[in-house]
Amino acid sequence: MPVYSSPVEETLYVLQEVLNIDRYNNLPGFEEATPDLLEAILGEAAKLTEEVLQPINLAGDQEGCTRHEDGSVTTPKGMKEAYDAYRDGGWMGLAANPEYGGQGLPYALHTAIGEYLISANMAFAMYPGLTQGAIAAIDVHGTDEQKQQYLPKLIEGAWTGTMNLTESHCGTDLGMLRTKAELQKDGTYKISGQKIFISAGEHDLSENIIHLVLARIDGAPEGTKGISLFIVPKFILDDDGNPDQRNGVVCGALEEKMGIHANATCVLNYDGATGYLIGEENRGLKAMFTMMNEARLSVGLQGLAMSEVAYQNAVAYARERIQGRALTGPAEPDKKADSIMVHPDVRRMLMNIKAFNESGRALMLWTALKGDISHRASSEEERQLADDIMGLLTPVIKGVLTDKGFENAVTAQQVFGGHGYIHEWGMEQFVRDVRIAQIYEGTNGIQALDLVGRKLPRDGGRAMRAFLEEVNSFTKTHMDNEEIQPYTQPLRNGVKALEAASMWLMQNGMKNPNDAGAASMDYMHLFGLVALGYMWAIMAEKSLAALSEGAGDKQAFHEEKLITARYFMERIMPEAQAHLARIESGSETMMALAAEAF
Amino acid sequence: MPVYSSPVEETLYVLQEVLNIDRYNNLPGFEEATPDLLEAILGEAAKLTEEVLQPINLAGDQEGCTRHEDGSVTTPKGMKEAYDAYRDGGWMGLAANPEYGGQGLPYALHTAIGEYLISANMAFAMYPGLTQGAIAAIDVHGTDEQKQQYLPKLIEGAWTGTMNLTESHCGTDLGMLRTKAELQKDGTYKISGQKIFISAGEHDLSENIIHLVLARIDGAPEGTKGISLFIVPKFILDDDGNPDQRNGVVCGALEEKMGIHANATCVLNYDGATGYLIGEENRGLKAMFTMMNEARLSVGLQGLAMSEVAYQNAVAYARERIQGRALTGPAEPDKKADSIMVHPDVRRMLMNIKAFNESGRALMLWTALKGDISHRASSEEERQLADDIMGLLTPVIKGVLTDKGFENAVTAQQVFGGHGYIHEWGMEQFVRDVRIAQIYEGTNGIQALDLVGRKLPRDGGRAMRAFLEEVNSFTKTHMDNEEIQPYTQPLRNGVKALEAASMWLMQNGMKNPNDAGAASMDYMHLFGLVALGYMWAIMAEKSLAALSEGAGDKQAFHEEKLITARYFMERIMPEAQAHLARIESGSETMMALAAEAF
Repeated sequence: MPVYSSPVEETLYVLQEVLNIDRYNNLPGFEEATPDLLEAILGEAAKLTEEVLQPINLAGDQEGCTRHEDGSVTTPKGMKEAYDAYRDGGWMGLAANPEYGGQGLPYALHTAIGEYLISANMAFAMYPGLTQGAIAAIDVHGTDEQKQQYLPKLIEGAWTGTMNLTESHCGTDLGMLRTKAELQKDGTYKISGQKIFISAGEHDLSENIIHLVLARIDGAPEGTKGISLFIVPKFILDDDGNPDQRNGVVCGALEEKMGIHANATCVLNYDGATGYLIGEENRGLKAMFTMMNEARLSVGLQGLAMSEVAYQNAVAYARERIQGRALTGPAEPDKKADSIMVHPDVRRMLMNIKAFNESGRALMLWTALKGDISHRASSEEERQLADDIMGLLTPVIKGVLTDKGFENAVTAQQVFGGHGYIHEWGMEQFVRDVRIAQIYEGTNGIQALDLVGRKLPRDGGRAMRAFLEEVNSFTKTHMDNEEIQPYTQPLRNGVKALEAASMWLMQNGMKNPNDAGAASMDYMHLFGLVALGYMWAIMAEKSLAALSEGAGDKQAFHEEKLITARYFMERIMPEAQAHLARIESGSETMMALAAEAF
Repeated sequence: MPVYSSPVEETLYVLQEVLNIDRYNNLPGFEEATPDLLEAILGEAAKLTEEVLQPINLAGDQEGCTRHEDGSVTTPKGMKEAYDAYRDGGWMGLAANPEYGGQGLPYALHTAIGEYLISANMAFAMYPGLTQGAIAAIDVHGTDEQKQQYLPKLIEGAWTGTMNLTESHCGTDLGMLRTKAELQKDGTYKISGQKIFISAGEHDLSENIIHLVLARIDGAPEGTKGISLFIVPKFILDDDGNPDQRNGVVCGALEEKMGIHANATCVLNYDGATGYLIGEENRGLKAMFTMMNEARLSVGLQGLAMSEVAYQNAVAYARERIQGRALTGPAEPDKKADSIMVHPDVRRMLMNIKAFNESGRALMLWTALKGDISHRASSEEERQLADDIMGLLTPVIKGVLTDKGFENAVTAQQVFGGHGYIHEWGMEQFVRDVRIAQIYEGTNGIQALDLVGRKLPRDGGRAMRAFLEEVNSFTKTHMDNEEIQPYTQPLRNGVKALEAASMWLMQNGMKNPNDAGAASMDYMHLFGLVALGYMWAIMAEKSLAALSEGAGDKQAFHEEKLITARYFMERIMPEAQAHLARIESGSETMMALAAEAF
């Protein structure tokens, strides 16, 4: 049976020592996030994830969801009880608006806990995960009445939410969507059409399901400028705000998927369902992007979280599995064989994942903190800067953390040899589950295009300049520190490659957009290397300082951080040059073949 | 529904134009392999794979194999009929020893057909695939009587074979195996123990199953030097050589696997089963390696074949899926959107796979041809040279072609967006199926170690020198040809990196074996880059020559080859430098953490 232990110590280290979260205790919600409270909350989250969610993960994959003839859906054994525990613990509202019952704690803390939920049970975590998106969309774009109607119940966890974008003929290109909305005399709309791939679309966990649905109002302009967003509750609320009449939205089928079997991925049929416009008419995409950005960061988090749980299991297996002897001679001569931990190639696999996980977690929380600042800082300037950087990092987090997360889950599976291919060990489930993260909420190819085509040039490159300035100012500050050079020099090389790539993009991408498209995936991954490398440089600086001051019982901890930081710089950062070479090769060869020649 | 079309034209191109197979028509079995015969046989194989095997692939994955209470196993619907068609077509004996009913045709041809079988239905192809290993082992190590008893029926396809190595506590480290063999008065052995992960271990396709089983004879030395190989038929033969009494080997369970569901992966329980020693006592590993080398090449072929079928489906989808507009402006303004073929990142994905498939096929057949020469050439020197190179390439083919094959299947799945995650489209099955190829027959980590630890230093590096000489002599020969420089220069850079890495290994790997272990995976992939790059350079040279002579209706074909060759050199070859940098970073950081620190 797979194992999982929430990395509370690591989370606290990142929040407190790496990111100095106490710097921000003047921000609303942060003043309460004292070290004691952080530790207590993370400890409670660890309990929930380890004792309730993780134990039902493997069986839930095997059982999957069941759709009944009437369109109702049953989740696997234990899911309802787990959801009740989640709801009763008040987890849904942790960072939500206090006006509607939320606790208003930092989004960074919410993100840290999200990692645990996903590691323990990714399919489960998607139910509340999508609800968070619905909460954000209604909070930002809803009328006061809509907020009053929906937010308290969503924040309490009594109701859950969904995002309805995709139709069978359009995913990325939402301009083609066909779902219709007809205005009624009472100001509501009748929604008709079919949506596919709707995660958490129908289930037995909550008392109501609040669908947020993109549709086209009769007579609206063609393309993306004619799309509006609607609230379509599964049960229409009565005058007291309680779920009442069943609305005309039914789960027509469950998709048979590669993984996340315990999450109900639905075909939803809308047949004149009552919907309520949210936000402005024909500005639905803008409103949807509020959910989407939130969702993209959460999907990036899935990459990290699945990499972490896969890693923990690979480590546990590598410690116990004895097979062969160390190349340098028997390490444990009394045993029949050594643990496979002695083999360099096993170390390579584990170090690759470890070096990613620890910097990935730092990057995730660093970005989440920017999210907090962007909403809560008192100065407009500070808010803008944080928002810029979070916007820039969103596609990088989504694309890079899920690509690496998948790669790492596969690597961790490889540590198990043949057992990794067998269901009961849990590793192949991690691989199947995390695979979707590279695909949904905009494929990673779309993330890369969002980065080079929108986020990078936006406001004359202001966000990118701010990011590079932060990184460069860090390396400059420590230029005279000899000890830190093994960490900052490779980072500098990475930054130089990123700067050269950015320059190349400016010079070529404008003239020939295909050059930008051809470069996009490598550019995103190059950016990711630099961002993760920056996290390692910060952590190395902290550890060098701690060790020089005498780290006491934290000595081993900091020495280990330095080793892992060095590993990242020696073994992972060199990929920067290959990315740059590919970027600079342009698009000519890539686009040269006729479509028929494939 | 997934599609598949056997790439007969590509195979013929590689065999005839790239490898000039007619050079070898003095070799036994080759004289018959006329162009007409090759084309006819490949055409027949295409029919079998497209009309019989591929149509049952998706359903077979869903249905899986069923074990009944008596230990018997039923394969999914259509498998038995498909196997009968395979058997009746005489495919099992295509390259087998004519003395026992084989047709003695080139192993290279057999390999080409193997690709089609796997692409169409990997789980199916494993049944005959394992039989080929059993045939090879008995042919090389069996007594005349054993050959007479088993080979004709195996070669005919009436019986199938298996390899029994793994036990639950030992996979890689076979020295620990516990299955026992007790000598009986009649010279037979009683075999007792449990084997796991036995592919095609029990099924309803053939009249008998010939298990080749590693076991330890009572009183044999410990470790790998006390292991012997036994023939253990499911049904013991009567005096006329017909299957008679049921032997004491039973399928105790089927493994629940990530993929290849239509292949029965068995736990086999041996309870005093009658076994016959094959080869010398205590030299079982040596005999098993005959099967293993054959099997490793076949597993590499799985990587290529699954990459090919995944590619074909991704291309078909990319052509038909319309979504968004070309970055350079609408390509098909009359339609609602352009085909996703116009997007550079979709091109990047398809070109990555195409550039691998075409060179991978060439490398596979180039190596298979070395196998033919190693067995059939008249001069000992020629046989030795071919055997050296095939031995050297075996771990590279297995490790690199399966790592890339998996990566490509994942990439092809990505082209489908959300549909790639849904079972009915078939892409997620390709990913799950091919994943095993990186694991079994020695994990790819073991392949890498085999390469740097055994194949490279063997006979003072003779094989590696011969390989480099062949590549270097090619680039030297064409040094004055300006036109070919865009293909040979990047190859030269790759070779230089490989030479530097080899030098580094010689200087460091001997002093510190961990340095060799730490370098092994990157070294194997660097080697793979050079080997694939060499194939592209050869193909580019052929196409340049053809075009300069006026290629007629082959003009587009050769122009496309040059584009794909250039893509490989511009976009894939640059990885060589990252591999070298990682290799040269050594093992110190990788091995620095205490085992408890993970």
